[in-house]
Amino acid sequence: MAAEATVRVPRGNKPYKRIATEEGFCPPELLEIYRDLIDNNKVDDPAFNAMFRFYLDSPSERVRQINNGLVSVGDFRLSQMDDAGIDKAILTLTSPGVQVMEKDDAVSFAAYANDWLVSEMKKNPDRFAGLTAIAPQDPAAAAREIERGHALGLKGAVVNSHTKGEYLDDPKFWEIFEAAEALNTPIYLHPQTPPKNMSGPLLERGLDGAIYGFAVETGMHMLRILIAGVFDRFPKLTMVIGHNGEALPFWLYRLDYMHRAGVASQRYDSMKPTKRTISEYMRGNVYITTSGVAWEPGIKFCQQVLGVDRVLYAMDYPYQYEPAEVAKLDEMDMSDEDKKKFFQTNAEKVFKL
Amino acid sequence: MAAEATVRVPRGNKPYKRIATEEGFCPPELLEIYRDLIDNNKVDDPAFNAMFRFYLDSPSERVRQINNGLVSVGDFRLSQMDDAGIDKAILTLTSPGVQVMEKDDAVSFAAYANDWLVSEMKKNPDRFAGLTAIAPQDPAAAAREIERGHALGLKGAVVNSHTKGEYLDDPKFWEIFEAAEALNTPIYLHPQTPPKNMSGPLLERGLDGAIYGFAVETGMHMLRILIAGVFDRFPKLTMVIGHNGEALPFWLYRLDYMHRAGVASQRYDSMKPTKRTISEYMRGNVYITTSGVAWEPGIKFCQQVLGVDRVLYAMDYPYQYEPAEVAKLDEMDMSDEDKKKFFQTNAEKVFKL
Repeated sequence: MAAEATVRVPRGNKPYKRIATEEGFCPPELLEIYRDLIDNNKVDDPAFNAMFRFYLDSPSERVRQINNGLVSVGDFRLSQMDDAGIDKAILTLTSPGVQVMEKDDAVSFAAYANDWLVSEMKKNPDRFAGLTAIAPQDPAAAAREIERGHALGLKGAVVNSHTKGEYLDDPKFWEIFEAAEALNTPIYLHPQTPPKNMSGPLLERGLDGAIYGFAVETGMHMLRILIAGVFDRFPKLTMVIGHNGEALPFWLYRLDYMHRAGVASQRYDSMKPTKRTISEYMRGNVYITTSGVAWEPGIKFCQQVLGVDRVLYAMDYPYQYEPAEVAKLDEMDMSDEDKKKFFQTNAEKVFKL
Repeated sequence: MAAEATVRVPRGNKPYKRIATEEGFCPPELLEIYRDLIDNNKVDDPAFNAMFRFYLDSPSERVRQINNGLVSVGDFRLSQMDDAGIDKAILTLTSPGVQVMEKDDAVSFAAYANDWLVSEMKKNPDRFAGLTAIAPQDPAAAAREIERGHALGLKGAVVNSHTKGEYLDDPKFWEIFEAAEALNTPIYLHPQTPPKNMSGPLLERGLDGAIYGFAVETGMHMLRILIAGVFDRFPKLTMVIGHNGEALPFWLYRLDYMHRAGVASQRYDSMKPTKRTISEYMRGNVYITTSGVAWEPGIKFCQQVLGVDRVLYAMDYPYQYEPAEVAKLDEMDMSDEDKKKFFQTNAEKVFKL
């Protein structure tokens, strides 16, 4: 990877802007909060503890770069964006955000992170947009924070998947969807490590994180929301998922078939008829980004089965800072019109930039 | 689905035979064994218990058809194969097979199931082939059973994913790989419901089974095997996974990237360097079948990223008996040569029919 990182991609060299739509950040205090949570065994989540023990203490060059990138919404990050040809980054509080904290801490740190982000972004308003961090631990407060963030100019909300093993398909969280729909602002469902009652066999072979566990947990979360009928209750709600849709585009046929069979069998009390099929919701209410998957076959497959209007570019900075990947995506065999949608205009529409 | 099932597809109407490569069966006694295991709380596996409580007792027409299909390696199944244009079915002991049983019971029932299958198939040798059921609970016995099944004319072995939460990447199971490699016969890694330490949030919204949980658990199992270096130790071993490769083809780029990053970071003792990349193993040692995913975009994507020689047709009988799906796959926009590979010759090569 070191060799590829020496590629430099200029901004402004193509007939489109490059907007990267799933880029992580955090105020520096967050990493110290995680250290306290881990050192004092405050979070009953083996995968979270293992991952951040690694990220906080690893001497590796890659991890040091990640931590430097996370806490910068200024010169360091801008320099890397310049070298990768990224015109604008949409910033989200890095996973798991506040979702491992106790309720009151989570609510207050989410607000702090949003204020910090807005303040930092003001120095370079052309280069950054951001999403509102929320604490699902307090759904009413989360709904209010979405409104407050929107008033501050943030462009949607981010949820870093499960909150202490709980999922947004539980109606107790639906105030969050209600607030987002009312403001016509999207919710980005970002990965997290799987909770304790899912991570067991993934951890045993190092599969809990970005290599696999993130995707299966987040894909499951999105499916839970779809199957629960959230988009029947909130038909104008839009959601965004990364990593080429966490493989849900690959599964559209099987999801529709088995959802229909599952509903018909009445096996599950938690799987009732919905107004539309899973693939219809995926093509009507959900957008995907390509964070971490700079791979033409996968991207074009997703465009084929979801539509070119539903696939947005993302880099996944600072976790996957690869200017060479940007150069490669520039060269995809794709019409100029579709490439502009991919890199620029889809993001402008979804996030109202 | 009922409407589609009235489509009839003749055999012999195309310039290829249709060989369905992941078709479930069981001797009738297996269902009674499961009933005993469940009624007497003998298996500490909530997803298994929930699924077979449903399959054993559901009055639904679909489930009745499934159970009739499972126990038939004769007229009932042949009639359905005739109506769907299936020339030959490769039969595997239905999931979870013997892998929920205690060791001695598992070893003896696997042998019984293999003898039963061989005996039934003899009545229609042109229409059926079968794989050897094994009990990973006793790896040495499983290795011997692969040899015995091979001598009886069976065409490989089937493992229904985890065995009481244990995975084949544990070297204690590697006698199984050694036996299969020595005989140059494939191992089919078939799905099962996820074990207790993975199924929690999947069960809450009905996602434990074929709609999603099967795939993420089996994809994980295959990844564990790849990352553990099994194909470095057994380079001539071939394995087969169903359901369009349990989404691993969709993830090839990300798997390679994050595997490389994970190895480089030395985060996991269980993730050491391997001789080749995950995608190289997937294109060199692994074949996939399309069980349950009769969907042209997904199939062609898999052919594109793995190669047309690595993608085999499967129906997933009796769980997904859809003659209309066969008719649809006949009409895929694909060269005659590739279609013959897909329906016939790839299977003949992989399973040495």
